[in-house]
Amino acid sequence: MLAKLKIEPIDKKAMEEARKRQNELTKPKGSLGMLEELSIKIAGIKAQPRPKLKDKAIITMAADHGVVEEGVSLYPQEVTRQMVLNFLRGKAAINVLARHVGARVVVVDMGVIGGFSEKGIVCKMIDFGTKNMTKGKAMTREQAIDSIKAGIEVVEEEISKGLDIVCTGDMGIGNTTAASAISAVIMQKEVENVTGRGTGIDDEQLSHKIEVIRRAIEVNQPFEDAIDVLAKVGGFEIGGLAGVILGAAANRIPVVIDGFISTSSALLAVKLKPEVKDYLIASHCSAEPGHKLALNFLKLKPILNLNMRLGEGTGAALALSIIEAATKVLDEMATFEEAGVSKAEK
Amino acid sequence: MLAKLKIEPIDKKAMEEARKRQNELTKPKGSLGMLEELSIKIAGIKAQPRPKLKDKAIITMAADHGVVEEGVSLYPQEVTRQMVLNFLRGKAAINVLARHVGARVVVVDMGVIGGFSEKGIVCKMIDFGTKNMTKGKAMTREQAIDSIKAGIEVVEEEISKGLDIVCTGDMGIGNTTAASAISAVIMQKEVENVTGRGTGIDDEQLSHKIEVIRRAIEVNQPFEDAIDVLAKVGGFEIGGLAGVILGAAANRIPVVIDGFISTSSALLAVKLKPEVKDYLIASHCSAEPGHKLALNFLKLKPILNLNMRLGEGTGAALALSIIEAATKVLDEMATFEEAGVSKAEK
Repeated sequence: MLAKLKIEPIDKKAMEEARKRQNELTKPKGSLGMLEELSIKIAGIKAQPRPKLKDKAIITMAADHGVVEEGVSLYPQEVTRQMVLNFLRGKAAINVLARHVGARVVVVDMGVIGGFSEKGIVCKMIDFGTKNMTKGKAMTREQAIDSIKAGIEVVEEEISKGLDIVCTGDMGIGNTTAASAISAVIMQKEVENVTGRGTGIDDEQLSHKIEVIRRAIEVNQPFEDAIDVLAKVGGFEIGGLAGVILGAAANRIPVVIDGFISTSSALLAVKLKPEVKDYLIASHCSAEPGHKLALNFLKLKPILNLNMRLGEGTGAALALSIIEAATKVLDEMATFEEAGVSKAEK
Repeated sequence: MLAKLKIEPIDKKAMEEARKRQNELTKPKGSLGMLEELSIKIAGIKAQPRPKLKDKAIITMAADHGVVEEGVSLYPQEVTRQMVLNFLRGKAAINVLARHVGARVVVVDMGVIGGFSEKGIVCKMIDFGTKNMTKGKAMTREQAIDSIKAGIEVVEEEISKGLDIVCTGDMGIGNTTAASAISAVIMQKEVENVTGRGTGIDDEQLSHKIEVIRRAIEVNQPFEDAIDVLAKVGGFEIGGLAGVILGAAANRIPVVIDGFISTSSALLAVKLKPEVKDYLIASHCSAEPGHKLALNFLKLKPILNLNMRLGEGTGAALALSIIEAATKVLDEMATFEEAGVSKAEK
């Protein structure tokens, strides 16, 4: 599957045209800072000198995690399922923010205990939650591959409906534990440097969480490749989002990465296909300490820094408004010549 | 005029209710970081526990500066007038961003050389530009007071049309020179620490600009009060925006401060009426070095940090999307009880 997936380099010519236009628009050169960089990057990704972002989707993937039986989260496991129902009713943070920025939310069940008979959810269930990774693999290698495949399918389905940009989002009680484990293994960092408070655990619970992650890594090492990391210490939604990222890049769709969980998916995706990196836009830097390290590792500069740590795609949704603004500036502003404005004197 | 202006304290009870609701919404406590703080602040300003931001305006004030004859800017003076015409045609960055966030742009002539016969501009012209502040006062004390009065009138006119939140914006070739001078005097900082490259001057031009500002301060000292600072080293649009800020606060309208110029207006407004401070929201931290110092001085935390330095209200317009998102989260999300989601276990 992954061997067939072809990710082209981004289009330097479109970027050059976009950069040239930015320099001709009625504002001092470079004065819109990161907005200018973003517009040029999107031009390169979409191979369009004046890209437009009309169809926007946030793909929020949910799954359960066997490791919660080790007591790593503040919330009971059933909250994963309850929150998905909240998404389907349009009453969660991600729904509010998606409506605000004019994006659709695509809710995907990647493996939530109990499952769903409700309408409006995409079912790609791999299993009813992963296994407890402190006692062995979280999932089989086949399940890991299936979760990535499912993610590719989901994003390709959205592309068939019309999609100009996609955001990643996650829901899964216990998933910061998996994201920390993935980050520690892939970036070869100490567990304590990539582990945070998740939904809000205290100092004692944090020490315990670090200990749990250390044990999971010890039990499961050595790690062969990115698929092996996903299988041993990952999660179904994390694999699914890695698939979304890969599938989007293969179709020249810019991917707005949400928080720490989504970034752990990006680490896996980049490990699998390094050329995916240029298709990624970091929406924000969350309060999770591992997130900043992972963004540095991926050499991505986050757009927002609002001390958020909710996941669901909320950081990506907010950043979407800034990214869309960047493309509108590039497309809609007048040039010095058109407006009859005098240029700089030297 | 200012003696009559009454600015009430923000409403602690509405803030308490908003905070309580934030803690009951279906997300870990505090997990939306700055979005939660913003929603609570707006609740306090508007004295509404669930405020809505429907009517949004960006008041962009323009004026010319006599000090440009000292060669402090990269652009010729006529660009002020040309850019105002660009605003009126809806083709400048601020127009694009205002449309994107659903706000109206109110363009105000506070003293642009040549004036305007076009429709769609609010005329509050004090004079055809200030005088060269290196040779004496930029304007008379009466003009300084008139510019503030004009700003109050402009925002009150917008309030009469319906206004839930207002952004400040500026246009005026040479106005970073005035803003640096105001910042140096009010914060008692060295001129070199509050002076930047404006539209993009080089090292040599920057040294010259610093020297010009030092001379302007020396020629005009001592400074009696904020009105005196505005009169001696300010600008008509800077005084006008101070009036917008004061008039908005007096009517419980939150004020989103744009970049360095707008923040110099905020410094003046806070000096005149310290109780205005709680009504201010810092949209972004610009690339101008004095801006960061001024935000620290005002104890304001900027929402965005995108290395922008355009003015016009562009930073404020972008931040408006985040601020509106914050109020929608507070208003539209379900509580744990409504959604039947289990709470944290401890």
